[in-house]
Amino acid sequence: MPKTFIYPVEALKAYVARFFTALNVPIIDAQIAADVLVSADLRGINSHGVIRLHSYYGDRLIKGAINPASPMRVIQESPATLTLDGGNGLGQVVAYRAMSRCIELASKAGLAITTVRNSNHYGIAGYYSMMALPEDMIGISLTNSQPLVAPTYGLKPVLGTNPIAVAIPAGEEKPYTLDMATSIVSIGRISVHQKSGQPIPAGWGINSRGELTSAPEEVLQGGALLPLGGPAELRGYKGYGLSLLVDLLSGVLAGAAFGTQVGDPGKKGTADVGHFFAAIKIENFRPIDEFKAAMDDYIRALKATPKLPGQDRVYIPGEKEYENEEKYRHQGVPLLGEIVASLIEAGQTVGVPFDLETI
Amino acid sequence: MPKTFIYPVEALKAYVARFFTALNVPIIDAQIAADVLVSADLRGINSHGVIRLHSYYGDRLIKGAINPASPMRVIQESPATLTLDGGNGLGQVVAYRAMSRCIELASKAGLAITTVRNSNHYGIAGYYSMMALPEDMIGISLTNSQPLVAPTYGLKPVLGTNPIAVAIPAGEEKPYTLDMATSIVSIGRISVHQKSGQPIPAGWGINSRGELTSAPEEVLQGGALLPLGGPAELRGYKGYGLSLLVDLLSGVLAGAAFGTQVGDPGKKGTADVGHFFAAIKIENFRPIDEFKAAMDDYIRALKATPKLPGQDRVYIPGEKEYENEEKYRHQGVPLLGEIVASLIEAGQTVGVPFDLETI
Repeated sequence: MPKTFIYPVEALKAYVARFFTALNVPIIDAQIAADVLVSADLRGINSHGVIRLHSYYGDRLIKGAINPASPMRVIQESPATLTLDGGNGLGQVVAYRAMSRCIELASKAGLAITTVRNSNHYGIAGYYSMMALPEDMIGISLTNSQPLVAPTYGLKPVLGTNPIAVAIPAGEEKPYTLDMATSIVSIGRISVHQKSGQPIPAGWGINSRGELTSAPEEVLQGGALLPLGGPAELRGYKGYGLSLLVDLLSGVLAGAAFGTQVGDPGKKGTADVGHFFAAIKIENFRPIDEFKAAMDDYIRALKATPKLPGQDRVYIPGEKEYENEEKYRHQGVPLLGEIVASLIEAGQTVGVPFDLETI
Repeated sequence: MPKTFIYPVEALKAYVARFFTALNVPIIDAQIAADVLVSADLRGINSHGVIRLHSYYGDRLIKGAINPASPMRVIQESPATLTLDGGNGLGQVVAYRAMSRCIELASKAGLAITTVRNSNHYGIAGYYSMMALPEDMIGISLTNSQPLVAPTYGLKPVLGTNPIAVAIPAGEEKPYTLDMATSIVSIGRISVHQKSGQPIPAGWGINSRGELTSAPEEVLQGGALLPLGGPAELRGYKGYGLSLLVDLLSGVLAGAAFGTQVGDPGKKGTADVGHFFAAIKIENFRPIDEFKAAMDDYIRALKATPKLPGQDRVYIPGEKEYENEEKYRHQGVPLLGEIVASLIEAGQTVGVPFDLETI
């Protein structure tokens, strides 16, 4: 087992916020970005958490590739629709504000959609869809991302891992919170296999000649991820269709970059990432108590269904993440040694030493 | 090659409409239902076309399990939201009217959602999403359906094949029209393999013991379909999450049946199927000409991307179906002998002989 270090949640958030303010991000915005990043670690999605603090955000702020002021502006507005320009700001800040506005509109109109152009990588898609839950709304959050996925019958990466996140409140049960890349796995998962010297299951990706490969480095160097479903026989073109859908809504509809034009957060230059948010007020369709009771009934029926031999649970999307969050809130957030090392290095670069005490 | 018979499109539609009117469906409604059914055959989706005329619709009308008058009523309404009761009417008629109302609301509000409870199987999901295209809107159509799909780690079918259909207009290029079951394949595809004595690829379904099987009859008798993605290693839980999402929106939000409670169109009793429709007016987000030009650029870039060895095309969702439709509109609709036989039998039962001349 690799060694993990455990930190108190609030102290970790405060550190990340200090890091951002040192890079001229206003304090309120820094706290938003910190909350999004640490939430990923809290929910057990370390690949999208503080490990990216420097490589995806700090480094770009230093280089001037992200505007720390996140100067957003309204392009077009109506009672239920809103088109925003993110001002090349921090993706988390831009997305948080865009979803807040979307919820505000939906509280009056019953539903609303907000699109965003000229933004950056926004962290976990599910953070923003889940903002709708306390308002008794259904939240949707989509974003495009840099090209990593080959379309069915294509050889080269032209689509992002373009996630779909939807949050739907329940009553006594935990909410339904889907947050999925439309590729089979993320590029981070391939890197994890490469670093640990493990082969990848056939189907996750192709090499530069278009062959399914079990060698992670072949996917990373000139290869491509495959969309959900994998090969055509198992209907990978549906995953391709979903990945493209996310880009048509968050890229093309928003007036942002799309396809191969979406910037890589690891590289120079403006990314012009696009987002799509929606909020649906449940009371506009049926009484909220009825709705929540039906959600609870459905979730309980799923959990009571007979299991495959050797399995003892059927999970609801997001259930494992809620369990992680409850545990880590009490016990502290576990971070792998390599993540701590990256924070120490990031802190040195920015002049905000990572000096938190472990629990 | 099995023998096919070719019929003129309009004559086939007129026959189907006569069939429905003989079962007390009002003439305008009969024409709507006929257009939806024949559209499936026109687009090459024979599994959802006139082959189901009697088994899914005629038989249920005769038994009184579907109300031929489709007496819909409004449950709740606001400028951008609408909850309808389908009056246990013909799914196609109910869905057509619901999506028409949704488009009407969206033309004023910029976007709208209409949910429907107490409906029946509505044919191809894509028919209704595509109704948004001439209005320069994005259309979304979801429906739940009878339980056929096992959740990840589950043994029994508790979810429908719950399709997702989204239509997005382009400029000179064909629109993007996704219409996909959230299972790997439909149950009809399994039956086709059974009838022709062909094994099914490992991954499409499980037998009653929960094992992957290549025997179609094991899936049909006590087994289950698997969600898109297949086994957990290839992230089948994402397909399960999507299937559940469709049911939460078209079943739970609409106040219809959900999960194992959704009625099978092949059986007696009320089905209480639920639908979810959305329409998004593109002009509310960016000028339509800009949007269509970007769609064309994206589609052309996808088609120009390098191909896998042995492949010469990358397809846009719906592209093959548009090609079928263009061809069959001129040449007539091809129907397999077994489909023609089912029409002849259906016509005898209802007293409307199937006497169309082939081309």
